[in-house]
Amino acid sequence: MRLINLSTNVSRAISCRSLTTIATSEPSKPEMKTKFPGPKTATMKNEMSKVHQNASTRAFFDYEKSFGNYVVDADGNKMLDVYMQISSLPLGYNHPELIALAKDPRIITSLVSRPALGSFPRTDFADMVKNSLISVAPKGLSEVQTMLCGTSANENALKTAFIYYSAQKRGGKPPTAEDLASCMKQQLPGTPKWTVLAFNGAFHGRSLAMLSCTRSKAIHKVDIPAHDWPISPFPRYKYPLEKNIDYNKKQDKDCLAHIAEQFKLRKAKGEDIAAVIIEPIQSEGGDHHASAEFFKGLQKITKENGSVFIVDEVQTGGGPTGTFWCHEQWGLETPPDIVVFSKKMISGGYYYSPALKVNEGYRIFNTWMGDPTKLVVLEKVVKVIKEQGLVKQAKDVGDFLKSGIANIQSSTDNIQNLRGVGTYVAFDLPTSALRDKFIEHSCNLGLHVGGCGDNSIRFRPALVYEKKHAEITLDIINQAIKKL
Amino acid sequence: MRLINLSTNVSRAISCRSLTTIATSEPSKPEMKTKFPGPKTATMKNEMSKVHQNASTRAFFDYEKSFGNYVVDADGNKMLDVYMQISSLPLGYNHPELIALAKDPRIITSLVSRPALGSFPRTDFADMVKNSLISVAPKGLSEVQTMLCGTSANENALKTAFIYYSAQKRGGKPPTAEDLASCMKQQLPGTPKWTVLAFNGAFHGRSLAMLSCTRSKAIHKVDIPAHDWPISPFPRYKYPLEKNIDYNKKQDKDCLAHIAEQFKLRKAKGEDIAAVIIEPIQSEGGDHHASAEFFKGLQKITKENGSVFIVDEVQTGGGPTGTFWCHEQWGLETPPDIVVFSKKMISGGYYYSPALKVNEGYRIFNTWMGDPTKLVVLEKVVKVIKEQGLVKQAKDVGDFLKSGIANIQSSTDNIQNLRGVGTYVAFDLPTSALRDKFIEHSCNLGLHVGGCGDNSIRFRPALVYEKKHAEITLDIINQAIKKL
Repeated sequence: MRLINLSTNVSRAISCRSLTTIATSEPSKPEMKTKFPGPKTATMKNEMSKVHQNASTRAFFDYEKSFGNYVVDADGNKMLDVYMQISSLPLGYNHPELIALAKDPRIITSLVSRPALGSFPRTDFADMVKNSLISVAPKGLSEVQTMLCGTSANENALKTAFIYYSAQKRGGKPPTAEDLASCMKQQLPGTPKWTVLAFNGAFHGRSLAMLSCTRSKAIHKVDIPAHDWPISPFPRYKYPLEKNIDYNKKQDKDCLAHIAEQFKLRKAKGEDIAAVIIEPIQSEGGDHHASAEFFKGLQKITKENGSVFIVDEVQTGGGPTGTFWCHEQWGLETPPDIVVFSKKMISGGYYYSPALKVNEGYRIFNTWMGDPTKLVVLEKVVKVIKEQGLVKQAKDVGDFLKSGIANIQSSTDNIQNLRGVGTYVAFDLPTSALRDKFIEHSCNLGLHVGGCGDNSIRFRPALVYEKKHAEITLDIINQAIKKL
Repeated sequence: MRLINLSTNVSRAISCRSLTTIATSEPSKPEMKTKFPGPKTATMKNEMSKVHQNASTRAFFDYEKSFGNYVVDADGNKMLDVYMQISSLPLGYNHPELIALAKDPRIITSLVSRPALGSFPRTDFADMVKNSLISVAPKGLSEVQTMLCGTSANENALKTAFIYYSAQKRGGKPPTAEDLASCMKQQLPGTPKWTVLAFNGAFHGRSLAMLSCTRSKAIHKVDIPAHDWPISPFPRYKYPLEKNIDYNKKQDKDCLAHIAEQFKLRKAKGEDIAAVIIEPIQSEGGDHHASAEFFKGLQKITKENGSVFIVDEVQTGGGPTGTFWCHEQWGLETPPDIVVFSKKMISGGYYYSPALKVNEGYRIFNTWMGDPTKLVVLEKVVKVIKEQGLVKQAKDVGDFLKSGIANIQSSTDNIQNLRGVGTYVAFDLPTSALRDKFIEHSCNLGLHVGGCGDNSIRFRPALVYEKKHAEITLDIINQAIKKL
């Protein structure tokens, strides 16, 4: 068998015509050439629609020309991006240390000779996992399962919880012959009636089971059958927090009481709540926060019922809240049972506590079970985050951004309920229409920002977002608010 | 903004220490150094288990040293691979035309500046889709939706069916205010009770909803709650087909009658069957085939009931059956409503008929909705398949393989029910234990082969599998059978 050095191979290849250029620096400020989205986006959307449904397409981006905190769209508009592909790019666009990975043979072999990871991992797979996911594991959780996206990670977290809960009910024993026979007919006892408790306003993905936990917007859910699973309220605080202490404490108390009641009601019906799934900050649903006391109380109830406590950090994980994992801020005495990630973590997946490890083959399984190319990228992302102190930077720049918005707020009624940790900042406008107008003005002033919930603005910059970017952001917020 | 030519960037990078070597040719025959799996796999499995559950791990592979039809494991065993990462590598390992993609800037930018495809596609995304998926679209289907894997594709195919079916029930009108309000509580009418009909022995993935359609093995399903959806029998033929015509025709007839009955029963309960999902060949469940007449009859019943006909070609698609899509062999008068793919297609996703296009935003949506790096690879895969006539080759080499196995069969009782189209060949052994023993012998003789169902062997070579590989395969089958 002949072997070839990749460098020769790539060197030969790169003389080829198809090569283009990739940006290596940011513009000093936004620069708009057309309205956003512009005419080229409109043409491309029409063209794309002939071969691929695209009702949600907002703009076409030129990913080779984008760099750092700045995205360049099809019309050549250069925008400061504080939405960052729905919060999924940790280091912004085309970070030089990541572009250098083009040389890494693990990328190209894993891409073109993709392993069925559950059966045939790469010889270096354990190292890949250690150098990436394990090096930033939440305290108390030292094992992980990779998946392809947040939704598949959440699906498998639920399965892990059901498997664990069923085994507990059997006194730790494996499924019986009756369990195995009845599950093929989807009947009791092999197919249990266990349920999952999730919250009003939650977002956990859009597969059928995850939609049964998701209650952020009706258009996501309508016409799709659902599991009849319990729904509890998530606290809805008044801001500023320091002026609404009693009201907010009562929110916590009422929500916890509702949750405890659901456990009782479902147990009485033989529909035990096997797992509780919750976001540290309800993001898609409108950036709703809850107190450390609420989460501690929730963990306590969950534990008392022998149920699995799943923290969905798909959007909050990876540093933007000023700690690597948002749940670190709660001061839990024991870790969550499962912590789910995706987005800024490049790979989907979940950390699990040792008690939940599934030791029987093919129960947590699929063909790809993740993607090694993403772990190679994450390895480098984690290195850059640590070397450059980017989590601390997110905290500091986030504080600067929030206090800047507070200043603007003092002279307008259109900014309400300012809230956030790190750069994970949000505020509300009085109505949906005003919120949408604010986004339109901001984008046309060169700030690419996103909304969430009914009338909120959410900031989701990359971790390379610095004070100078926050200053431009504040300037544009100020202008956009004045235009309302 | 500065721009840099990628060739400079990569050239600079490739001088770096971390570069290793990638194989560029096949060995002439298998070469075993240890038992399979060997001692290095055992050590690595133990090491991996400290950080990542791996109960299903069979062997660690050296993906840089593997090439074409040959995989090299951690212990240096060189095996002819007719399982190919659970049928997911179309051109085998490290195909030179794919390795050359290391130079393509679309790969590295899409990897490190990954788009949220549903909102912000690349400016060249429509071209990527046209040059890859659309260039091999099943007859009559000219639009596609990319997803990350087969399971997420199936989940979204079901959602598409539910949305379509609900709209038909409303006379084509959008959801009412009552629909939108009630779905947030997961109640009628916004959350319908529509069901999906799938088959005994089927495999459609392992998310909760897809597990409700999957009935291949109990260990996949046990302890996981399921939707109460109808199950019909899939024909179980006797072989050889030409000697069991009447029996097999009766199978078709009985199964179709059962299906028609399910439509009636569910409609009477207000649990209309909104979609039927079926594999052209039940693969995971044991390589069960059905006749063109059966599939035509199934499409007819589905159509008469206003239900959506979903063909899951995740494992059959992409050429191995001797036609690019297996369902081409049925001679349907109108195309299936949805055709789902993944595995050999590199990207997950589904083709849909124009009537099923979802024109409202955020109903078929998630953050990534696919991965452009996979489309760049598929573009090249399709080019190689067409240039080299690999679908025709799969047919011819498959015929050679099957007739060779038929020869071996004539002198043993241990090969039963030989069946297949193209290289998608299978046979049964008398028991599970004998099947497992056969796999063990074959692997230790250097043929990496996989099982399916209770006691079947399935052949899933890459499309670059030639007559010379089939000859080695036959030689090893012969030896392994003699060792039983």
